[in-house]
Formats: sequence, structure tokens, C-alpha cells
Amino acid sequence: MTEKTRLDRQIDFLVEADKLKNTIRATELCDGSRYENSAEHSWHLTLYALVLADQGPEVEINLVIKMLILHDLVEIDAGDNPIFGQLDHAAIEAAEQAAADRIFGLLPDDQRDHLRAIWEEFEAASTPSAQFAKSLDRFQPPMQNLASGGGSWTDYDVTEAQIHDRVGSKIAIGAPGLWDYAKARIAAFFAAHKST
Amino acid sequence: MTEKTRLDRQIDFLVEADKLKNTIRATELCDGSRYENSAEHSWHLTLYALVLADQGPEVEINLVIKMLILHDLVEIDAGDNPIFGQLDHAAIEAAEQAAADRIFGLLPDDQRDHLRAIWEEFEAASTPSAQFAKSLDRFQPPMQNLASGGGSWTDYDVTEAQIHDRVGSKIAIGAPGLWDYAKARIAAFFAAHKST
Repeated sequence: MTEKTRLDRQIDFLVEADKLKNTIRATELCDGSRYENSAEHSWHLTLYALVLADQGPEVEINLVIKMLILHDLVEIDAGDNPIFGQLDHAAIEAAEQAAADRIFGLLPDDQRDHLRAIWEEFEAASTPSAQFAKSLDRFQPPMQNLASGGGSWTDYDVTEAQIHDRVGSKIAIGAPGLWDYAKARIAAFFAAHKST
Repeated sequence: MTEKTRLDRQIDFLVEADKLKNTIRATELCDGSRYENSAEHSWHLTLYALVLADQGPEVEINLVIKMLILHDLVEIDAGDNPIFGQLDHAAIEAAEQAAADRIFGLLPDDQRDHLRAIWEEFEAASTPSAQFAKSLDRFQPPMQNLASGGGSWTDYDVTEAQIHDRVGSKIAIGAPGLWDYAKARIAAFFAAHKST
């Protein structure tokens, strides 16, 4: 067997990444027609970053975008974990680390280390760029739910207080202006649609 | 009616962009299970750019990524135009310009102008970054077709010579190393699967 070239390994990784298009999330499209997948969600978040960069003035926006391109790749093996579901955080982290070993491991060694480091920075959420990226990842689903008329809030019978607790607190860390905006729109939605 | 804030307009644009997840392309997923949509395709291309940046040493990779995030937004109105279909280039360009007016026009004026300019640079394909982005956009479908066992080549009864003419010549402009790689793999595929 011929040894793989650098480009062979890069293409193996890119073809493997295609599987993210089959990872289904709990969030619906804005028109409510189906659930979104993690690949199109990742694209949408890069567009959020591009448009909402002024909400995170201290971030490196190009790094934020790279984080968002990469952030869900581990879901190819580990799956998506809906934020309003029951979560075993230790088990999820172990599964995601194993997934990162396998998936980034397809790349040439230098790129494996470089892209893995960007993903680890996102996961650790300890830099302003990572915190902003995480905030966008939490901010987009409420915008989808508001547009579709409930979405995952309806599916999981979520209360306004739960959104504040599980979503709002995270958005506020990296993008307080976006949480102020979402909070007001969510309050209006719950006032109109259901009891909290 | 209250006047829209800057953030209202940004969110209107981001919610409208969600429709790109419903624009279906002629390319299948690597597993052949369905056709891909333009949103997940756009994500995949940003990952191609991140991984294959060393194939375009003179490009601004962060600009390339921004182009690829934005490049298909006009398809929300204008649709996807399969490269092996019958194409009326003047009509397509008129439809895409009208789409760009409407879709980028949802944004605050400064962002409308800034993001439109990035898309126009991509469309003009006259800078190294735009040429590289265009090459990636042409390079990914053959990688999908090789993985799925034919894909759009089978659907459109495409010959190897047509791929060289419509796809290879474009890939070679911005990323000659990628065309060399694709050309050899395409030749092997056609030798094994069908007459040219």
C-alpha cells in the first residue's frame, strides 16, 4: 500500500467531516419545516459572528470564526446533546475527547495539533474569543425558536426560567448585549404564548 | 411602528439567511444518502479553506473564509445552478444581483456595503483570494462524487472531458495543486466505472 500524502490525509479529514451534515440538532429551522443539522448550524454561526462582531469588541473575530467552523466536529462520533435534555457532563466530555482524537487525528500532524488547539480553546471558554463564540452558539437557537414559534422550547416543555438559567447565563458571559436583546424578546414570546 | 434598531436589522438578516438551508444542490453527501444544501456546503467549504490554505500561499485566508461564508446567500432567491446543467449566464447574474440587493439590504447600511463588497470580490474572481475561494467551490463537488460513487456525474451523465472543461479549468486557476490531485483521482474513477 502506498503511504498517504499530506493531501490524501487532508482530503480524508474533509470527507469524514461530511458526516456532520447527518448530525441532527434539537433546534428547528426558522420555518419549522425540519430540525437543523450541525453542519448548517455551524455555517449559520459563522455568519452570526461576521454580522455581530461588534457585540464582542475584544475578540479576534477571525479566530472566533475558526472556532465556530470546528466547534461541532466531535458530534460526528459523540452526537448532539440538547441543552434542555438530561446531560451527563463527564460522559459527554469523555466522548468528545475521544472523538477529537479520532477526527482531528486524520489530519497531517501539524494541522491536527493546530486545529485541535483551536477547538480546545473554544471548549475551555476561558478567552474572550472563546466566550464570544460560545455565546453565539447559545444565542442562535432562541432566534430560531422565536422565528419558528417555539421549536425546542415546545418540544422540551421549557419554561422562561429554564432559558434564563441554561441559556441566558451563558450568552451573558461573552455577549451581554445579545442576552439583553434575547431576554426581552423571549419575555414577550412567553407572555403571548404560554405560562411560565 | 417602532423603527428597527441596528440589532433588529442584523437579526432580520440572520433569520432570512436560514433559508439557505432549504436551497438544494446537485451534489450528494459523501454517503449518497441525499443531496446537500447550500448552507452545509458553505460550512464544508470554510473547512476546506482552513485545511487546504497551504494550496493557496498568496491568499488572505481569513478573507477567503468570509467569501465562502457569504458566497451562496444569493441562492435564497436565485437558486442553485448545477454546473453541468444548461446555464443562461446573463439571466443568472441578473437574478443574483437582485438577490444581493434584497438580502444584503436587510443589514445596517455599513454592513450591507461591507459584506456585499466581499461577495462582489468573490464573484469577480480577479484577486488571488477570490480565485482560491472559487477553486475550492469547484473542488469540493468532485471530492463528494468520488466518495459517493458518482453523484452528480451520474445524474447528469457527465464525461471526464466535461469535468476537465467545466470544473478542472476553474480549479486550476486558483489552486493548481488541487486540480492535479483531482484530475488523477477522476481519471482512475472513470477508468474503473464508465467510458468517457
